[in-house]
Amino acid sequence: MCGVFGIYTKDNRDISKIIYYGLYALQHRGQESAGIAVNNYGYIDHYKGLGLAYEVIDKEILNRLRGNIGIGHVRQGTGDELSTVNAEPLVVGYKKGALALAYDGNLINFMELRNKMEDDGVIFQSSIDTEVIANLIARYHKDDIEQSIMKAVRDLKGSYALVTMTNDRLIGVRDPYGIKPLCIGKIGNDYVLSSETCAFDTVGAEFIRDVEPGEMVVIIDGEIKSIRTMEPKGKSICLFELIYLARPDSKIDGKSIYLLRREAGRNLAKECPADGDIVISAPDSGTVAAIGYAEESKIPYDEGLIKNRYIGRTFIQPTQELREQGVRIKLNVLKENVEGRRVIIVDDSIVRGTTMKRIVEMLKRAGTKEVHVRIAAPPVRHPCYLGMHTPKRENLIATDRSVDEVRDTIGADSLGFLSLEGLLEAVGREDIYCTGCFSGEYPVTNMKSGEEK
Amino acid sequence: MCGVFGIYTKDNRDISKIIYYGLYALQHRGQESAGIAVNNYGYIDHYKGLGLAYEVIDKEILNRLRGNIGIGHVRQGTGDELSTVNAEPLVVGYKKGALALAYDGNLINFMELRNKMEDDGVIFQSSIDTEVIANLIARYHKDDIEQSIMKAVRDLKGSYALVTMTNDRLIGVRDPYGIKPLCIGKIGNDYVLSSETCAFDTVGAEFIRDVEPGEMVVIIDGEIKSIRTMEPKGKSICLFELIYLARPDSKIDGKSIYLLRREAGRNLAKECPADGDIVISAPDSGTVAAIGYAEESKIPYDEGLIKNRYIGRTFIQPTQELREQGVRIKLNVLKENVEGRRVIIVDDSIVRGTTMKRIVEMLKRAGTKEVHVRIAAPPVRHPCYLGMHTPKRENLIATDRSVDEVRDTIGADSLGFLSLEGLLEAVGREDIYCTGCFSGEYPVTNMKSGEEK
Amino acid sequence: MCGVFGIYTKDNRDISKIIYYGLYALQHRGQESAGIAVNNYGYIDHYKGLGLAYEVIDKEILNRLRGNIGIGHVRQGTGDELSTVNAEPLVVGYKKGALALAYDGNLINFMELRNKMEDDGVIFQSSIDTEVIANLIARYHKDDIEQSIMKAVRDLKGSYALVTMTNDRLIGVRDPYGIKPLCIGKIGNDYVLSSETCAFDTVGAEFIRDVEPGEMVVIIDGEIKSIRTMEPKGKSICLFELIYLARPDSKIDGKSIYLLRREAGRNLAKECPADGDIVISAPDSGTVAAIGYAEESKIPYDEGLIKNRYIGRTFIQPTQELREQGVRIKLNVLKENVEGRRVIIVDDSIVRGTTMKRIVEMLKRAGTKEVHVRIAAPPVRHPCYLGMHTPKRENLIATDRSVDEVRDTIGADSLGFLSLEGLLEAVGREDIYCTGCFSGEYPVTNMKSGEEK
Amino acid sequence: MCGVFGIYTKDNRDISKIIYYGLYALQHRGQESAGIAVNNYGYIDHYKGLGLAYEVIDKEILNRLRGNIGIGHVRQGTGDELSTVNAEPLVVGYKKGALALAYDGNLINFMELRNKMEDDGVIFQSSIDTEVIANLIARYHKDDIEQSIMKAVRDLKGSYALVTMTNDRLIGVRDPYGIKPLCIGKIGNDYVLSSETCAFDTVGAEFIRDVEPGEMVVIIDGEIKSIRTMEPKGKSICLFELIYLARPDSKIDGKSIYLLRREAGRNLAKECPADGDIVISAPDSGTVAAIGYAEESKIPYDEGLIKNRYIGRTFIQPTQELREQGVRIKLNVLKENVEGRRVIIVDDSIVRGTTMKRIVEMLKRAGTKEVHVRIAAPPVRHPCYLGMHTPKRENLIATDRSVDEVRDTIGADSLGFLSLEGLLEAVGREDIYCTGCFSGEYPVTNMKSGEEK
Repeated sequence: MCGVFGIYTKDNRDISKIIYYGLYALQHRGQESAGIAVNNYGYIDHYKGLGLAYEVIDKEILNRLRGNIGIGHVRQGTGDELSTVNAEPLVVGYKKGALALAYDGNLINFMELRNKMEDDGVIFQSSIDTEVIANLIARYHKDDIEQSIMKAVRDLKGSYALVTMTNDRLIGVRDPYGIKPLCIGKIGNDYVLSSETCAFDTVGAEFIRDVEPGEMVVIIDGEIKSIRTMEPKGKSICLFELIYLARPDSKIDGKSIYLLRREAGRNLAKECPADGDIVISAPDSGTVAAIGYAEESKIPYDEGLIKNRYIGRTFIQPTQELREQGVRIKLNVLKENVEGRRVIIVDDSIVRGTTMKRIVEMLKRAGTKEVHVRIAAPPVRHPCYLGMHTPKRENLIATDRSVDEVRDTIGADSLGFLSLEGLLEAVGREDIYCTGCFSGEYPVTNMKSGEEK
Repeated sequence: MCGVFGIYTKDNRDISKIIYYGLYALQHRGQESAGIAVNNYGYIDHYKGLGLAYEVIDKEILNRLRGNIGIGHVRQGTGDELSTVNAEPLVVGYKKGALALAYDGNLINFMELRNKMEDDGVIFQSSIDTEVIANLIARYHKDDIEQSIMKAVRDLKGSYALVTMTNDRLIGVRDPYGIKPLCIGKIGNDYVLSSETCAFDTVGAEFIRDVEPGEMVVIIDGEIKSIRTMEPKGKSICLFELIYLARPDSKIDGKSIYLLRREAGRNLAKECPADGDIVISAPDSGTVAAIGYAEESKIPYDEGLIKNRYIGRTFIQPTQELREQGVRIKLNVLKENVEGRRVIIVDDSIVRGTTMKRIVEMLKRAGTKEVHVRIAAPPVRHPCYLGMHTPKRENLIATDRSVDEVRDTIGADSLGFLSLEGLLEAVGREDIYCTGCFSGEYPVTNMKSGEEK
Repeated sequence: MCGVFGIYTKDNRDISKIIYYGLYALQHRGQESAGIAVNNYGYIDHYKGLGLAYEVIDKEILNRLRGNIGIGHVRQGTGDELSTVNAEPLVVGYKKGALALAYDGNLINFMELRNKMEDDGVIFQSSIDTEVIANLIARYHKDDIEQSIMKAVRDLKGSYALVTMTNDRLIGVRDPYGIKPLCIGKIGNDYVLSSETCAFDTVGAEFIRDVEPGEMVVIIDGEIKSIRTMEPKGKSICLFELIYLARPDSKIDGKSIYLLRREAGRNLAKECPADGDIVISAPDSGTVAAIGYAEESKIPYDEGLIKNRYIGRTFIQPTQELREQGVRIKLNVLKENVEGRRVIIVDDSIVRGTTMKRIVEMLKRAGTKEVHVRIAAPPVRHPCYLGMHTPKRENLIATDRSVDEVRDTIGADSLGFLSLEGLLEAVGREDIYCTGCFSGEYPVTNMKSGEEK
Repeated sequence: MCGVFGIYTKDNRDISKIIYYGLYALQHRGQESAGIAVNNYGYIDHYKGLGLAYEVIDKEILNRLRGNIGIGHVRQGTGDELSTVNAEPLVVGYKKGALALAYDGNLINFMELRNKMEDDGVIFQSSIDTEVIANLIARYHKDDIEQSIMKAVRDLKGSYALVTMTNDRLIGVRDPYGIKPLCIGKIGNDYVLSSETCAFDTVGAEFIRDVEPGEMVVIIDGEIKSIRTMEPKGKSICLFELIYLARPDSKIDGKSIYLLRREAGRNLAKECPADGDIVISAPDSGTVAAIGYAEESKIPYDEGLIKNRYIGRTFIQPTQELREQGVRIKLNVLKENVEGRRVIIVDDSIVRGTTMKRIVEMLKRAGTKEVHVRIAAPPVRHPCYLGMHTPKRENLIATDRSVDEVRDTIGADSLGFLSLEGLLEAVGREDIYCTGCFSGEYPVTNMKSGEEK
């Protein structure tokens, strides 16, 4: 999971600040590393590091990074590879000059491509897909840059939203399934690209349109042109992106994230009603669905858990010993509000189930009479190879368990999942979504090879 | 506004970590500076600095700060005095040895006391009340420490919750009106003091009781003893603390903050109904009252504004120029959800009115049909001299304006305030609250002298 | 040991930068902490911290610290009290407004004064003499500031060079014995004060004269005036300042440090000749004396030890285990140059003797045939209470040992000390020096009380 | 100019600390960036950054970097490419696993090799030679690692001392001319490699021997083996390395740097005598030659310039404005010692001439009667393409000027250079040195291509 942002200006604006606020708006897509690259009329400078955008970038760096084209990136890795070498944008020199890349997605043929390159004597300085993509583009350097990128992405199997910058242009590409989001906006005459529209609201840009699946947009000389990279293969927008990752105030492919999540909550109330005194959410991911559930069920929406948000990169997690002594970080139960009551708790999804198990325990310990867990999505039964970093099958709570078994595992009094039909009805019924993690049916074939990256 | 925390252990526990998590739980009470002092069986060491607790304190410092008694502090100043010299705990040497102080409150006779001391040749290295208090205690050094503190606090006019540490004891004092909160908890056999109970939940402590107004508690040799510092003058708990400052999952003087805020929201719905399609909150301060309003009015609770929380000490605020270009930090409107609808927006209070004015503008620009502002408290017409850092009269929006004039100023279609009676009903009807900022009647006499600190 | 610096300008110059370079020139007088305070036409702002001046002060702070009067300080403590609370300048508020102090010296009646103040209820936030002095000045606030300072310094027993700043003037005072140095310079029409003249060379100032022992200079409205604080008690300039602490390119009280050290080296060669092949120095303190020794003895000056200077505040010292494995920091022997030769090594003084013992060992291990140690000062037999932080009697190698015993302790083949007469001859023969650490005769009476601060 | 260090241990020692002190000893070879990589029995971790070794590496990093094999690097770039992407060690993954490289040298066919690779689609993330070398090694991955490296270095034209680490071995290679130094030491049973022997003294290692020109040493399973990479082409040790770069306490290829520099100073006195009162050095580069000059000429060695060493990475250089106002950083004249005297100033070399010009000006302004400049090397008339980063022809003061013209340019009263014969006599007369920068005759053919890297 990552966030990408790009800007092209004709007259040199203060673009590193625009990128900074753009990354701030996309921060929910990745808190592990952040970076900015700018093209200063021919020279690409960049800065990146570990942490939130505002932790990595200070005033001195913003002042240094001047230019007319720029891109930015925030990243969430899988944790074990936490290092600046994996931060983006990736800035490289190749036959045609300098190239900067910011990427969101997941390649299922990463190892295959990398192995083939290593056979040819290529070295790698990171473990990110982006370095493989940069190598592909460089290998097609005899073509012009648009053709190079087109050929490169045709070699990719997986999901991607890629923002690339050269010395004279800004290029955005979206995978042919549209699994990963990417949209186009304008600030005056200047073009911006972003993973989500919420960044447009933050930087004062106007939303123009989404990049189409399989489309490449090239902004050069102040104009935007569109190139088709591949024959369309049918849309397969990531459902998890919509129900979990994106910010509620974003619109992706025409869908208001807020409205579809609330609708999912309403459908959940219809499909899985519960006798409860209040509807609460697992903060913050379940809030919108909980509001929809409350509205449909006429049971009042209320709060049962308070979240402490004063946590940053250098926060010192309590030791196991302190946890055993009762130190509780992040969530606190509103004992007065749940004690003796029948509580319906709504979340957007259950993946591993460990957090919900802990929440149910906390609620029970605080004297909640009944805990009814309602999930505004079907059980996640299959790993995702396309960018969500959901864990392996054996760590998914619902893979080998029936709903009743999951209920017992998390200790709830009842448990209900929204059906896939109910979810698809909420997001719009069209057949344009990837339902892989729920159904096991993926848009990209031959998924096995990507399993163990 | 500050948060204070203290711990006394017989057997040396890992107390700096406990204090660290206690401050993390109290962080909402002050984000400007943080600090920890520990008594290592006779030697008081400390560390403090600007920023959140986790930004100021790192692993190395936690490892250095070892001891059996410790106190901590988080602070919110008035902004213009942002400097480490004003950070606490204040650690001083005096006739009897070392003394560490962590203080929450406001002295209205600060200038009077300081002037008198300066006449005597005293120097000051900060602009905090705490330094005046430390000087008072030192001046009474011929008495034992409890007597010294008692005499010192008898000289104070104002509000305070003071946690003091010497080489052998931990002492908590609360002002005779109980304006500022302070409560007692236990972790096993060890005592903890905290501004709010939410810190007890975080560190795994059990709530014992509140420190009484005018009470001093002394923890020494593992035992707690209670001393009365002054004749009780009638309780005057700060209403603003309850409706605004405290965390909803805290209990103060027996009141659940969450429940009283929701009740205030319900009363507001009764007193000031509105024809609306949805009830939204001004995040996060108005959320609980909005939930109460929605419940009572049967109008669905919904979200209309999304708050970006990825902001820390070093975040670079946009320049005026960027703001004018449309850069919007912190709040974003959920356009899809408010467009064409009649929105009731609930907040806990209006002080300056600038934020609510900006919110109404944002909602209108997003196409909201009608904006009905409802405030779960009476108009704030009088400055607070007792710790809330509300601005001078001339900056209070409601001082010289009728409700209709305030409505016009903020641009709302309608505006309603909860009556003082309605608020008092919500918090429990007893005559134990300071209503100064609403009514102009303060528990402490001769308030004028404190006006311009 | 500390360095002090001050500047007064009529037209607002870029004074924080001047102070920054002044402190850089005085850095050899203290590497533990550094700080700058400026008076911005009525408001005194300051910044200080642990480390070298350039480590503590960054561009942002230089830009913030603007004003027309300013002072700076670098400090060397005794090590065990390493904390920002002991950094200077000390900035305090008192009856008459703000006051900033930068101090070099040592009070032998520190505890006496502090005890008396503590009896009166005064609190202390540091362990530095300067806080006692600030309190004294504040206590005399009924007088004008010059009188206040005059009365304050009359209470002091010890050495001091004190630079004080108020909202409208810069004041320098030197103790009546002139133990600590302080001199006056000019940059155009602006006055500067400095511990040593080398800072004048660095900031482009012209040396005017030394502040006289017992003199107070006050710079106000662009003019300098001189006030006598006390009847002169006979000059007693610290000999150790001249032979060890001051930079060789400084002049103190008319004496060129370089020339007097070289002369001491020459006298040493006359008094304590040695049969050697080369004269080397213990870098860097012995270099000038070694050059003089070589010149007088006609034995070539050469190098035998190379010093690694890439050490800063955060350098990680080797553990004892690594030292035992042979890890050697700071000094390396030039084996090729000393092997099989008779080496005369010259240092400015021996205090504890531990470094010279280690050096002799290193030289011997490298195959040096004979090691003849020559010291350009008499044996240090008495502790200094006046600012040199020489250790207690029991840690001085020469206190209870004859010269032969010292020679055996350090393992040298021969050892010679310059006589006190020889040293006084080198520095100028006048009877204006404190010889306390060599002779036990101190200018300030009743020294005992100051022994254990 | 860079410094390289490596260590191989059988039993896991605290190797990151050994490397840390090794880099500290080699710090004079590069102050721009530093880094350490360790192989933790199969996984290579590393850390690098801008600044001195102790500024880049802190305790936490030392604790993290554990392993049995490790390498380190300090770097001096040409300034315009100051960025962490150019810091080393370079750690890459390739077909055979992980590889870490630390390199000192200069490739004259860098652009040629890089262009050829870019033709093949290779990307570059830095501008360092090392990345080209890593690519070469990876391209020969079908051979075993020794063969891969051998083939790779055979493609290189230029100077290099390369330390490489894989998961099981430590490899050192030196170019076939021996232009760059590399030597072997032992700590107990563990092997160390270092650019200079001074690092062995610092870490407690015993010097074994130099790596031979064209030799590869491989340390695996605790044993060292030697492989010849190329037919010897005749030694061409860099003379500038000996007279300028290396630490005086190092021995390179059997030569004591100190002794040869002193001998050069003696020869200089014979060839270019001067009538002077004192011999001083341009600190610190000229000190050893000045001592030799003084000894030979019987004119006393003395000091005339004091150098301020409290400068680090974040030191804020004075603005041009401040310089014009007289702010003088780094060097200060000992006016008392030079005034009215005839001063012979000795330096190791003159390259651009700007520093010596400034020094002569300073001496003249301080009243020096005559300034006689003596240089312990011939005029540098030709740029170096082999690692010294001497500037282009047009910036070399001696390229198009006679000795008299250079003398006039720097403003000296007389100027003398040591002849190449005199220098070669000092270093040992054998025909094993590269004299390119003095004579224009380089050991590596076809130098032109390397001119503009």
